[in-house]
Amino acid sequence: MRMYDIIMKKRNGLQLSKDEINYFINEYTKGNIPDYQVSALMMAIYFQKMNKRETSDLTSAMVNSGEVINLSSIDGIKVDKHSTGGVGDTVTMIVAPIVAALGVPVAKMSGRGLGHTGGTIDKLESFDGFSVDMSIENFINNVNTIGIAVGGQTANLAPADKKLYALRDVTATVDNLSLIASSIMSKKIASGADAIVLDVKSGSGAFMKDDESAFELGKAMVDIGSALGRNTIAVISDMDQPLGNAVGNILEVKEAIDTLKGSGPEDLTKLCITLGTYMLLLGGVANDTEAARNMIEQTIETGAGLRKLREFIKAQGGDTKYIDDLDAFEQAKYIYKVKAKDKGYVNHIKADDIGRAALILGAGRETKESQIDLTVGIYLNKKVGAEVEKGEIIAIIHANDMDKAREAERMILDAYKISNDKVKPNKLIKGIVTKNKIIRY
Amino acid sequence: MRMYDIIMKKRNGLQLSKDEINYFINEYTKGNIPDYQVSALMMAIYFQKMNKRETSDLTSAMVNSGEVINLSSIDGIKVDKHSTGGVGDTVTMIVAPIVAALGVPVAKMSGRGLGHTGGTIDKLESFDGFSVDMSIENFINNVNTIGIAVGGQTANLAPADKKLYALRDVTATVDNLSLIASSIMSKKIASGADAIVLDVKSGSGAFMKDDESAFELGKAMVDIGSALGRNTIAVISDMDQPLGNAVGNILEVKEAIDTLKGSGPEDLTKLCITLGTYMLLLGGVANDTEAARNMIEQTIETGAGLRKLREFIKAQGGDTKYIDDLDAFEQAKYIYKVKAKDKGYVNHIKADDIGRAALILGAGRETKESQIDLTVGIYLNKKVGAEVEKGEIIAIIHANDMDKAREAERMILDAYKISNDKVKPNKLIKGIVTKNKIIRY
Repeated sequence: MRMYDIIMKKRNGLQLSKDEINYFINEYTKGNIPDYQVSALMMAIYFQKMNKRETSDLTSAMVNSGEVINLSSIDGIKVDKHSTGGVGDTVTMIVAPIVAALGVPVAKMSGRGLGHTGGTIDKLESFDGFSVDMSIENFINNVNTIGIAVGGQTANLAPADKKLYALRDVTATVDNLSLIASSIMSKKIASGADAIVLDVKSGSGAFMKDDESAFELGKAMVDIGSALGRNTIAVISDMDQPLGNAVGNILEVKEAIDTLKGSGPEDLTKLCITLGTYMLLLGGVANDTEAARNMIEQTIETGAGLRKLREFIKAQGGDTKYIDDLDAFEQAKYIYKVKAKDKGYVNHIKADDIGRAALILGAGRETKESQIDLTVGIYLNKKVGAEVEKGEIIAIIHANDMDKAREAERMILDAYKISNDKVKPNKLIKGIVTKNKIIRY
Repeated sequence: MRMYDIIMKKRNGLQLSKDEINYFINEYTKGNIPDYQVSALMMAIYFQKMNKRETSDLTSAMVNSGEVINLSSIDGIKVDKHSTGGVGDTVTMIVAPIVAALGVPVAKMSGRGLGHTGGTIDKLESFDGFSVDMSIENFINNVNTIGIAVGGQTANLAPADKKLYALRDVTATVDNLSLIASSIMSKKIASGADAIVLDVKSGSGAFMKDDESAFELGKAMVDIGSALGRNTIAVISDMDQPLGNAVGNILEVKEAIDTLKGSGPEDLTKLCITLGTYMLLLGGVANDTEAARNMIEQTIETGAGLRKLREFIKAQGGDTKYIDDLDAFEQAKYIYKVKAKDKGYVNHIKADDIGRAALILGAGRETKESQIDLTVGIYLNKKVGAEVEKGEIIAIIHANDMDKAREAERMILDAYKISNDKVKPNKLIKGIVTKNKIIRY
């Protein structure tokens, strides 16, 4: 088999066989195929696309390029949850303890990654002493005893995906549905998930800028899951404004705790209930969405979810005092109020601009080497649909540097679009994609 | 300027600016842009194409990536001739002395290259002592005194093209009209040509397998020439069977000498007259095709072309005794006759198969390191349209190894298609492409 022939075949619009896909992924991972041939293939795939069968073959080749976590010693259906990424996305820290409390084992490998704010692990480290450093035995033991553990991605998961993504990133070949979908799914499957609930974001703050492409991505990932024997459901949700009110690490953790106490923002609460509902269904602990929803609402009301969070933080060495006293969390030096320049209604909040403002404050990583400042961020007092008076506070900046605070203020004012006419709030849940159907709300 | 943005722009179907093309060619030549970005761009160009302006900008960027030979100290219009490559193509050795004898200065940089047989230089080395090693001063002096010189490509001509071609060759991105045309034209222009006559081959033994694509390539190259101020004409000629009767180095040299004596094969003679005609026109030594044709026919009749060949070979150190005594050339050990299996008419001779048979005998290079055997080759006694009897000799193999001779025999028998019905010989000259028109015969 020759890489040249594989490139030529795809260039000419033909389907690659499973053997051909395995060959190029294996040999590329081993370093036997040069980057310049693979980037040419990626560009050919950009133009000629891959069909469902090729896409699932590519995914399993990438899964098999490295270690596959074996979670078979954990009883029950391990349901993983994945978000395609947005601004102010604190869902995991809320949903994971809730479904764990309801009997769905949560065995999550999480990353730090780049972005507007840190990843789930960075946020969890807001609890003094919390650590993801543990042996795979301890990890499994924690899941078996308290139902939940979050580990760092120490294993060599889907190395082909890492190498391929780095190459696509510098050759303008990221934007292809099959390549995006297989990249996400390969990591989830290598992490040992039996079933997967996907939160596919759509809007200005998301990778997928419109609903059409978000539904397509959801469908492509659900198809891969089905082909590889993982029950998969995708929820398509709005990211045309940030989710919840908080953007920043400790700010989001506080919001997550509030939500587990039943006093979180409406949109964040609603999305957590929806995603949790499908996790319970795929995990086999509820029979229908109605029952699942009731179970989750009760878990919030009774405080069982919050108790599970406390148990989980404690099990991994974290100080739980913060859960009872949110003011105990470290705070940024400056609290800077952003006031509306005009009166009217919030028409739109450009989520990506809010994300960039948080990044400038120091909440996220621009490069792998960047240090995260857990205390900084933005709290959005007004969301789309809200009425504002001129001079009213629309957002609060938490900063450790006043110059950066002023820069963030400019960006936030720019991100808010105020109109004279009343505005209908955004629809949060845009639809659901399952193996057999696509439902649009 | 960033290479990433250039790839993205072309991927999205936009035109690249002259600055962008210069940037990527210059930085790639210097080694500042990695192969993997350039191969992605080449694949994007394969799908999105380049327009006329981009193609000529690419050509001039490649010309300027290295040395440009300055032939201004040679009087007259320097007309170069280039063939896109075929089987049994001995044209240069015939046309060059003819037009030189008629006052068009021939200052030719030639290569060795890979292929079924050697390049022009390899063939010229059939004359004992002949050498292309000379200073640029001697080269120019020879052109000024006797009207003709052939040098090796020692200068660093269009290094961007070399690097780009090597990359395209292993990434399935060769087949793009703009990339093929700019590659050829950049080398010709860097060699110092004022005007160019192109012999674009069409058929099974050529790079362009059908007339449509051969005309398109001719047009693309003529457009580049016009844009860069080089008067350019393309002749589209048949390569559905080998040209002439000889395929091999010394065999082709003998055929060239025969042709200069007026006793060459009809097709080879005709093509040489046609290409020579346009060289005289572009060189400004004839006013119309009729006059040019007469001048060339007279040059053959009077032996002036042959005398110019003798003068040229002598000036570059070659022994000219062979010109008077063709039997003085070294000969292969075995002369092996290939006989027709059936009676009928030659319907087709697969030129590429004949070329491969010559390569197997040792007439050409498979890799840059291969040694060429000047003595071996194939003489085709019967060409398309000829009537053959069963057992009649259709071809003669010249070999130094009997096993290879037998393998070549099988390939030759396979390449000949004999039919029962009379066959019309192939049309040799398929058309002409000039700046303003395309003429199809």
